[in-house]
Order: sequence, then C-alpha cells, then structure tokens
Amino acid sequence: MRDPIPPTIEWRRDRIRLIDQRELPARLTFVECATVGEVCGAIRSMAVRGAPALGATGAYGVALAARHARGAAAVRSAAERLVATRPTAVNLAWGVARALDAYERSGFDGALAEAHRIASDDVAANRAIGRYGADLLPEGSRVMTHCNAGALACVGYGTAVGVIRAAAEAGKRPHVWVGETRPVLQGARLTAWELDRLGIDATLVADTMAASLMGRGDVDVVVVGADRIAANGDVANKIGTYGLAVLAAHHDVPFLVAAPTSTIDLSTPDGGAIEVEERDADEVRCVAGTRIAPARVTALNRAFDVTPAKLVTAIVTEQGVARRPYARSLARLVRARARQR
Amino acid sequence: MRDPIPPTIEWRRDRIRLIDQRELPARLTFVECATVGEVCGAIRSMAVRGAPALGATGAYGVALAARHARGAAAVRSAAERLVATRPTAVNLAWGVARALDAYERSGFDGALAEAHRIASDDVAANRAIGRYGADLLPEGSRVMTHCNAGALACVGYGTAVGVIRAAAEAGKRPHVWVGETRPVLQGARLTAWELDRLGIDATLVADTMAASLMGRGDVDVVVVGADRIAANGDVANKIGTYGLAVLAAHHDVPFLVAAPTSTIDLSTPDGGAIEVEERDADEVRCVAGTRIAPARVTALNRAFDVTPAKLVTAIVTEQGVARRPYARSLARLVRARARQR
Repeated sequence: MRDPIPPTIEWRRDRIRLIDQRELPARLTFVECATVGEVCGAIRSMAVRGAPALGATGAYGVALAARHARGAAAVRSAAERLVATRPTAVNLAWGVARALDAYERSGFDGALAEAHRIASDDVAANRAIGRYGADLLPEGSRVMTHCNAGALACVGYGTAVGVIRAAAEAGKRPHVWVGETRPVLQGARLTAWELDRLGIDATLVADTMAASLMGRGDVDVVVVGADRIAANGDVANKIGTYGLAVLAAHHDVPFLVAAPTSTIDLSTPDGGAIEVEERDADEVRCVAGTRIAPARVTALNRAFDVTPAKLVTAIVTEQGVARRPYARSLARLVRARARQR
Repeated sequence: MRDPIPPTIEWRRDRIRLIDQRELPARLTFVECATVGEVCGAIRSMAVRGAPALGATGAYGVALAARHARGAAAVRSAAERLVATRPTAVNLAWGVARALDAYERSGFDGALAEAHRIASDDVAANRAIGRYGADLLPEGSRVMTHCNAGALACVGYGTAVGVIRAAAEAGKRPHVWVGETRPVLQGARLTAWELDRLGIDATLVADTMAASLMGRGDVDVVVVGADRIAANGDVANKIGTYGLAVLAAHHDVPFLVAAPTSTIDLSTPDGGAIEVEERDADEVRCVAGTRIAPARVTALNRAFDVTPAKLVTAIVTEQGVARRPYARSLARLVRARARQR
C-alpha cells in the first residue's frame, strides 16, 4: 500500500467525522457532523455514499440524535429523517433500525455501541467478502469494476474493491479497468484514488469503452457492489451496472456482485419492488461545476438500475458465495448470519 | 426551427470558415483557416469532427493548398498531411482524394469546384438519408442517438440527426434520448444544442443510463452515424456505439446506422481491418478543463469501436436502405452512386 486510506466514518467526541467524498480526488478532507440535520445533508449531498457506509452513518446518526435529543419521540423522528434521505440502498434503513432498536433497549450508550458494532462488523465482513471473492479471480485477472464499491463506500476495505484488494494481497496481480461512472464519477474520483493509494494496477476508462474492451477479450471478470439485493437475486446498484451485466453476458464474462448480507432484503421480492432514486438533472448537465450541455435541455438523472438475477453469475457475501437459484441461496446466507448473532 | 444552424464548413475569401465545435454549446464561434497547417490543427483538436464534415474539410484543405502551394508536389504533400490527422473516418481520405484528383486534372479551380460539389452533395445526401430513415421511424418514436451525427458532423442537416429531423418535419413528433458520449461529450454539447435549435423534444442522459431506458421499454429505436462501414457491414463509429448495439439486440430494439455512401469503404473487408484511433488520455482524466481523476492514474482513450454487422438492423444511405446480407446490399448502393456521377 502506497498511502493508507483513513476510515470513511468515525465517531469522535460526540461528532461523526466523514471523509468528504465530494472533494476527492483533489483533496482528502473531512466533514464533521454535530447534528442529525448535518448528517442528512452529508448523505443527500453525497459527502458520504455507498450502501455499507450509509448503514454505518445512519446508525451513528441515531446515536447522535440519542446524545442530544430530549426523549424517544425525537430520536424516532430523527431516525425517520435519516432513512428518508436516500431511498434505494437498503443498508441505510437497516443500520438506522438496528441503532434505534438498541436505543429503545438501552438509550444512547446502546445506540452508540450498536453503531460501533456495525462499523467494525462492516470491515470484518468486507475482509471475508474479499477472501471468498478472491478465490473466484484467476491469477492476473483483468477485472472491470463500476462506481465505487471500495473502502470509501464502506467503513473500510471495500466490497467489490475488497475482492480485488484481497486478490492483490494473495499475490494474484489483478489489473483493474475502472469505469468512470457518470454522472457523479465515483469510479474516476474515488475508485481510481483508492487503487492508486493501494498500489494496484488500474486503468481508467469512460463508461462508453466497456463494450470495446470486452469485445476484444480484455476483460476476464466484472465485479460490482450493490445497494439492494432482492430475495430473488435481482440487484439494484449504480446506474450503468445493468448495462455492464448485459455486455458481460453477451461476451461470456462472469459478472460478480460483492456485498454484505445486510444488503440482501428478503422483504423485497424482486427488482420491480425497488424504488429507484432520481437525482438533480444538473448532475448530468454539469461536470465538476462546468455546464456541458445547453442550459435549457431536459436531462434525466436516474441514479440506479436493476440487474435481473439471471445476468448475475454469483453474489459474494461475508457468509459465502450465493449462486442461482438465488431465492434459496440468499435465504440460506441470511439465516447463517442470523445464527451468528 | 427555433434558431438556424449555420453551415459547419464554408469557403470564404480563400479561407475555410468552420464552426468551432470546441466552444459549443457555450458560444457559437468560428475558426478561420488560412493554411493547411491550420486545417490540420482544427481537425486534430476537433474544432471540426464528424465523418462527412471531415470529408468536406479535407477537400477544401486540398483547395487551400492548391491556392497557395508552388507546384503539385506541395499539394500532394499537403493532402497526405490532411489524411494523416485522423485515421478512422474514411470520408476524410475520400474527400482529400477527390479534391486531389480534380486538382491534378484542372488545378486550383478544379479542386475548389470539387470541394464545393462535395459540400453541396453532402447536404443533399443527408436530406435523402433523412427521408429514407424517417420512413423507418413510427409516429411518436422514442429514438436514442449517440455522439453527434447531426448538422455539425456534416456540412449541414445531419445523418442520424437528419433521420430524426426528417421524421419531425414529417409530423411524426419523435422524442430523442441524447447519450452524452464521454469522453468528448459530443452528445451533450452538440446534439443537444442542435435539437434545441431545431425545437425537437429531447432528453439528455449519461451513457450509463441507456440500458435502464431500454430495460423499461422506453427506447423504440437507436439511430447512430458511422465513421467507416466495411464491405461486410461492420460499422466503426464513436466509442460506445458497439455497447448500444449489444444493448439494443438484447432488448429487441432496432439498431439503425445512417451514413452517406462515401462512408462505405468496400476496400476494407471487415471491422478487423479498421484502424481505431487512440487519443490523449487527458480527454478521459479531465472534463471541460477540470481534472476528475487522480493525476497519476493511467487512462485509456479509445475513440471508436466496431459494431459487427450482425447487430445492425439496417444501414440508411442516400441511395436507399441496406439490409443483411450487407456484402451484397452495400455493394449495390455504392454501384448506384457511381452510376449517378
């Protein structure tokens, strides 16, 4: 590793300190949230993003509310506000619910302890995902990834990037094709930054180049993260993921999803039931503050898409690897996690 | 039409006046080239781009050389320099060769007359392409296009955008999904600008959103241009075209290529024989002058890809519509053009 990557989320003196991901890769700076309103703002503006990171941030947000709020009603209201900031990633609702349960049982101390547990479990889960996933990556694999499912999308280590990182740690010398991931460019800004810090060989490409690379046989495997996995194995993830899955299937390239079991939502039967967030059209009309399109053009900014289970080769979790039929394999992994707690 | 679009290329007082496409959509300005060196610079920097536009620019470039050069050797050398600026679009070499032939026969006057003929033929061809193509677009079609195959990619009117434009002129009220087309953003910058000027209903999307739109049934047809069409129907076009073609086939969406017969290169047997230009990696690492990725990350900037003929539903030319098997239908259209001259 060339340079360490600090924790994405940390509880420090009754505040939540977050890496300010809006400023990367130009500057490594932090935003400190002292109120739930500030936490909601940080989530909405994507100072912090990524499904597992949102789970931990939501839990710490409940702890923050419990620290300052007068009474359970105010903490419950804060929890609702946190969940409402972003609809697609299930981990946010999951982390908030866990911390709120702990608060209802044992107050602020319980909520904070639960948030700490979620944070440390996240890093441990990602290392386990990495080990399981690295087994699926042959020596010298050319791995395409999309968006950022790295340390910055989690508390640390990463899910999809964690798989690549574990392969590198196992001496398998992966090469990474980093899709830049318009409109918010999490691939170019965050994944490229992480891989550079980790000293892992990577090449940035525009999203438009994925098909050309696969067509020439230059991609051995695609690994992405997930924001929500339905009971049948349909995967909601960053916009562009579904397109990569179609391309991978067309070119017989394995398509892997790496995510903790907290991303699996057995109460969502399939992808059709997942709410897909639409964001401000100016994220499409502008890049890095510069307008790239005529001001009066209409733009659509759908933030996620849903990849049907039939295009997913395997789902790698901290409890092991799920394969089709996912209805059975995912339920088994979720039960395995429940038994451990 | 809300606002007229001036000619992309014009011969004015022994100079070539080009719309400066690097400045769009912020400013409609022009660059005037008085020397072949300036023409080469305008092509390389993409002040002018688009296969048919490069054909006319190359021809006028030869006329410019003939106007100033002392002797045929200097004109031939200028022609070689013009062709070498960009390797993939066959129209550039085609326009230069036509003007050079005319120069060899009848000097500067011949070269200039030939360039004028190429320019006016281009607009007429695009209008014919538009008529043939519009017949293939049902009323109210939701049409996805990529890059800019509009008036700005030609001398005027456009090829793929010409098809949409002709459908609009025929009262078919198309709606256009404009893919922004990273890295150079010709869709966001140029196609969105043209459609706004034409008053045609359009929505800009990031390239990552195409699959999601097709998956939800929101795309009825894809129409793109071409930089070179091989004898077997393989199509070289802007990077990202091949991915759209795979997505279209997966979703049973017709995939149309609109191009003049000057883009068909019967001497190129198939896509494997087409040289694909790679451009400066900073076009990927930066957007609108702002760095979006870590400075030391490696980036690949492949400017074109090749779509295999089997994914192309039809090729719309000014001589009519070619369908599979393309080896036969394309040769027939090229012969039809030859008979007209």
